[in-house]
Amino acid sequence: MTRSALSRRMNLIFSFPLFTLLAAFMHINAAHAESKPNVVVIYADDLGYGDLACFGHPTIKTPHLDQMAEEGMKFTQFYSAAPVCTPSRAALLTGRYPIRSGMCSDKRRVLFPDSGGGIPASEVTLAEAMKSAGYRTACVGKWHLGHLPQFLPTSNGFDSYFGIPYSNDMDRVADRKMGRKIFLDPKVKYWNVPLMRDTDIVEQPADQTTITKRYTEEAIKFIKQDQKQPFFLYLAHNMPHVPLFRSPAFADKSLRGLYGDVIEEIDWSVGQVLQTLRDEGLDQNTIVWFSSDNGPWLIFDAQGGSAGLLRDGKGSTWEGGMREPTLAWWPGHIPAGTVSQEQGSTMDIYTTSIKLAGGAVPTDRVVDGVDLTPVLTQSGPGPRDEMVYYRGTKLMAIRKGPWKAHFITKPAYGREPFKEHDPPVLYHLEHDPSEKYDVAKDHPEVIKELKAAAEKHRKTVKPVPSQLEIPLTQK
Amino acid sequence: MTRSALSRRMNLIFSFPLFTLLAAFMHINAAHAESKPNVVVIYADDLGYGDLACFGHPTIKTPHLDQMAEEGMKFTQFYSAAPVCTPSRAALLTGRYPIRSGMCSDKRRVLFPDSGGGIPASEVTLAEAMKSAGYRTACVGKWHLGHLPQFLPTSNGFDSYFGIPYSNDMDRVADRKMGRKIFLDPKVKYWNVPLMRDTDIVEQPADQTTITKRYTEEAIKFIKQDQKQPFFLYLAHNMPHVPLFRSPAFADKSLRGLYGDVIEEIDWSVGQVLQTLRDEGLDQNTIVWFSSDNGPWLIFDAQGGSAGLLRDGKGSTWEGGMREPTLAWWPGHIPAGTVSQEQGSTMDIYTTSIKLAGGAVPTDRVVDGVDLTPVLTQSGPGPRDEMVYYRGTKLMAIRKGPWKAHFITKPAYGREPFKEHDPPVLYHLEHDPSEKYDVAKDHPEVIKELKAAAEKHRKTVKPVPSQLEIPLTQK
Repeated sequence: MTRSALSRRMNLIFSFPLFTLLAAFMHINAAHAESKPNVVVIYADDLGYGDLACFGHPTIKTPHLDQMAEEGMKFTQFYSAAPVCTPSRAALLTGRYPIRSGMCSDKRRVLFPDSGGGIPASEVTLAEAMKSAGYRTACVGKWHLGHLPQFLPTSNGFDSYFGIPYSNDMDRVADRKMGRKIFLDPKVKYWNVPLMRDTDIVEQPADQTTITKRYTEEAIKFIKQDQKQPFFLYLAHNMPHVPLFRSPAFADKSLRGLYGDVIEEIDWSVGQVLQTLRDEGLDQNTIVWFSSDNGPWLIFDAQGGSAGLLRDGKGSTWEGGMREPTLAWWPGHIPAGTVSQEQGSTMDIYTTSIKLAGGAVPTDRVVDGVDLTPVLTQSGPGPRDEMVYYRGTKLMAIRKGPWKAHFITKPAYGREPFKEHDPPVLYHLEHDPSEKYDVAKDHPEVIKELKAAAEKHRKTVKPVPSQLEIPLTQK
Repeated sequence: MTRSALSRRMNLIFSFPLFTLLAAFMHINAAHAESKPNVVVIYADDLGYGDLACFGHPTIKTPHLDQMAEEGMKFTQFYSAAPVCTPSRAALLTGRYPIRSGMCSDKRRVLFPDSGGGIPASEVTLAEAMKSAGYRTACVGKWHLGHLPQFLPTSNGFDSYFGIPYSNDMDRVADRKMGRKIFLDPKVKYWNVPLMRDTDIVEQPADQTTITKRYTEEAIKFIKQDQKQPFFLYLAHNMPHVPLFRSPAFADKSLRGLYGDVIEEIDWSVGQVLQTLRDEGLDQNTIVWFSSDNGPWLIFDAQGGSAGLLRDGKGSTWEGGMREPTLAWWPGHIPAGTVSQEQGSTMDIYTTSIKLAGGAVPTDRVVDGVDLTPVLTQSGPGPRDEMVYYRGTKLMAIRKGPWKAHFITKPAYGREPFKEHDPPVLYHLEHDPSEKYDVAKDHPEVIKELKAAAEKHRKTVKPVPSQLEIPLTQK
């Protein structure tokens, strides 16, 4: 600690009465005695790698997320397992690439209101594993893994559910002639999306202007319930997916405009959750993750986010589509202010959480998540060395160590066809995070290794039917 | 302060013997008694907006700069006054757009070893103003404002100079046939650049492998000198301008490769300077700035940096060319951990420093720098609302509030001609920091205002001869 920093802290501490200090001390020690940590996963929707202040955004203020990073760990090479919503969320909750559960397709990128499929009952969701380990569980927010009763959170290990079951731009009822204008000045009535409690629709259209606030209140209520039992909370915001909405308190507050207002409300929400944990004396016994399902939706111009220095965004297997601004917070366990350059994936949140809970990671199937505890506690090297990049069912690219080989490329949107590359296009992601300089010709041995790794991965994949192609009528 | 953070701090403090605390306390109070703050300006060369961890780079570690940001202020909208070296540095040291001093040209972007010009004696440099206010002064590092005796730092208000007088890629002696290969595996002998002490060449070619280290040692030696007199230190690193060199201790340490090694050595250097200030009990009485002369030199691929989410880089008047990753640190005066979204410019470092020193900002000429003290101390609104973007002598663009109008555009490098725009291309920089979405047609009134502001600025500019076009033979 620096002398000046020490002085500032002393001044502060001298102003606290001694009994307050002692009380705080005892309280924390009591919390330490707990064995099974609570787990909170906060998931944003279409948040870009560059959209938080602590990841470099110039005009979005995220003081609570910045503080979360200062008190915890910032991951700079952390991936979702798909560049779009449904498969990404399936991977988070199953610890497996979505190709294994059938939660991806080349015909439809995600589930829609007219979809009849959803997460197969045979999958062991994170909520189911945590419940088996003695946790109470709640899902608050966007689900998007099937909206028929058998696919909803309460059928998949969650004790309760409150949220919009799919994307907030579905069930559009606005006149098609309005085109993209509905996103520039969005109104609740343009989309007839339902808000559900457990398996019932309680509001339709959902009032999206207060959705982030209400999700937050619901999350806090859940945290404050019975504290004898450990808990798992999955708080999946519908924002900042277009159409963008925020509470009146955040209207026109951000220099970044509407998109910034929305992120600043999510930042507030994170602050509320962390403060509740502190107030309840649970902070030292709760690990909180913050991440996003995929990169920014760039086709929506200023209503879409920014992937920072990364290439492309949502929908693409360039880094901007799948590398997420990720934080982990667990005071007393994760060294404060750590920047981890280790690879990680949302699938690892699955395995890490179950291990920390003393639960059972399924052994009768391939689980792609690894236990990141050594990274979190800085007690050992990172166990993840590889990421596979799928678009639908297509294995587009693979990363091994710092190298990424693209076998197939295609921009996120537009009519440009899939382009196959042999030899693949090769980038050194740690030297060249923006994927600008193809170095394939200089590294034939690396290409050989990455091709072999992709082949090895392919051999572990068994064909399963796609859930995304099942129409509603077949239910 | 959070309860958990408090607990961590308590644990730390309880481990300190009481007398150490009291000693530290008294020491700091003594330092507070000083009236004129010391000023340190650390300037990097071609560092990109996205190249520090605290500005979002994923694989460059900058723990000391991150700590400087946590203890001080991070500016997210801070500008140099030119997209290339010589004019940018002239602006920093004169507080004026380089068009006013003649330190720019449309024929030669910067000064070269065959240049006979330099900073005019009529300019009042920051060093001269600080010296007049009773400061001892030193310049360590890159100068690039003229290498003839009358232009060197010791003729311009600095008591001493130690450094390379221009860019480290000049005086090239390597075989032209080697082309760009000399940058991929640079060797000291490829460039015959001199290292000077005051007005004498003391080493040629300068051993660039230890240049950052030696600059740091020189800076520390200067700080530790006579402390009865306040000081002004200008520490201008030659790095990360290509060719890239770092000390053996930093070789192959960064995941980012050679460029990362170089930044991590600069980060180390900043840490050394701040630690020296703490050790000497000067931290509460010294304001330290960190910034860069211009954006990253993108044509050098992985040997060049990254402007993060900003467009283009060095040489261009897009944001990536002129917006700099800037930090200010002054414990006890700048509130710790502040992110300022206010506009600022390196020209403001001139005015702010002189004001803090109780010196005299020249009143017989236009000075473009403003006093940022209200921003630093968070005691009032930011006084800067406008930036003018010059390329050579061409007024290319202007920013007013969040709006930026480009009257002329041209990529940083390449043969594409200057392209004039009427109406200008218009961006809302706070909504769209990447300058992607031209909104000119929706805002004719903003364009009118920005055109008027440019016209008003033009009227303040008096023609002066260009110093960059004077050949060496005329000296």
